[in-house]
Amino acid sequence: MNHNDIYARLKELRIELPPSGAPAAAYVMAADSGKLVYLSGHIAKKNGFAWSGKLGATMTTEEGRMAARSVAIDLLATLHAHIGDLNHVRRIVRLVSMVNSTPDFTEQHLVTNGASELFNEIFGDAGRHARSAFGVIQIPLGACVELELCAEVE
Amino acid sequence: MNHNDIYARLKELRIELPPSGAPAAAYVMAADSGKLVYLSGHIAKKNGFAWSGKLGATMTTEEGRMAARSVAIDLLATLHAHIGDLNHVRRIVRLVSMVNSTPDFTEQHLVTNGASELFNEIFGDAGRHARSAFGVIQIPLGACVELELCAEVE
Amino acid sequence: MNHNDIYARLKELRIELPPSGAPAAAYVMAADSGKLVYLSGHIAKKNGFAWSGKLGATMTTEEGRMAARSVAIDLLATLHAHIGDLNHVRRIVRLVSMVNSTPDFTEQHLVTNGASELFNEIFGDAGRHARSAFGVIQIPLGACVELELCAEVE
Repeated sequence: MNHNDIYARLKELRIELPPSGAPAAAYVMAADSGKLVYLSGHIAKKNGFAWSGKLGATMTTEEGRMAARSVAIDLLATLHAHIGDLNHVRRIVRLVSMVNSTPDFTEQHLVTNGASELFNEIFGDAGRHARSAFGVIQIPLGACVELELCAEVE
Repeated sequence: MNHNDIYARLKELRIELPPSGAPAAAYVMAADSGKLVYLSGHIAKKNGFAWSGKLGATMTTEEGRMAARSVAIDLLATLHAHIGDLNHVRRIVRLVSMVNSTPDFTEQHLVTNGASELFNEIFGDAGRHARSAFGVIQIPLGACVELELCAEVE
Repeated sequence: MNHNDIYARLKELRIELPPSGAPAAAYVMAADSGKLVYLSGHIAKKNGFAWSGKLGATMTTEEGRMAARSVAIDLLATLHAHIGDLNHVRRIVRLVSMVNSTPDFTEQHLVTNGASELFNEIFGDAGRHARSAFGVIQIPLGACVELELCAEVE
């Protein structure tokens, strides 16, 4: 086994990848162009359903962080299903984080850290990504967080 | 004529491409990098003006779907003007859909299907794209939907 | 000195690049993939702190424009720190502009022009980019504008 084996790292972190989800509509979960894989926006889910909530009203920042972390795991599951081997990820390039927010909630960056930190823990330097995080008025199915990702693979 | 001819397909679907629009501000409608063409966010228009409205308040999901479909046609018109021949589209890679929403509207994915399904109908497998859809508090000129697209061309 | 020297152009425009900022959370300010550099969303700052405000409520369109222009300068500072020489920018490819807005504010495109026009002034044709601008309910730390950029370098 490779010291950099991503699946061993997931096991150490006690993370089990869920089955890869199906798109809720007329699109695909991942599209390639050159060495880049573009993953569709993934909404937070709990027990297979949309994890609904609004930061600043029905959820705390810490709960939002946990939701963002769970979406990051779902993104990895999609990436695993799409490319076959997560050890082929050369870089997590870009993350976009839409946080379902009230007009008064200003900690979208802390919520998004739940995902960013997970990528850092799993991929090390290759997990260090550019990102944008902002508050949105609503997300499909009322989910609390939606994350979109672009990764470079080899 | 090629069996995969995109213009024949547009004709079958009774879609006429409008003249390509001009940017409303200090940018361009399309920028290239390598094989990718990045199209600017296009707002929904009706009779040449912004198609204003807010999902969850002044428009139904079905009306939003029609608006998204019309923006998709405008995106194709821009792409046609930019690359000269839509048969050179290798893949619709990524779509971002901003839906002008109330805090209670949660069907941004169904609105966005108006565009996604059109790309599937016209390009077949090459039209299957990654996408993100979310609700925003407002869009330039009060438009109901704004769509941004990235396509790979040959 | 090169006629196209970007630093001479910045000097003519009396623009001094600030020190490059540090990320507010678990990510990096810039990530590369191939010839593209993806810059993280940069929030507007004033005197080193978040430039807070909401368009349509506490700020005018003209103030928003100035904020967007200042973010564009910060993006250039990050790009300079990351690639070492802004003369290697081949193209500003894509700009995403999130404007902290009330439900009634519909001039996100005019706010964003503060950034777009600066890129045009500095880079000429190479500064002409695709872009999306839209209103969001809130931005990390209450900032009035957040801009994300993708540039092609040589």
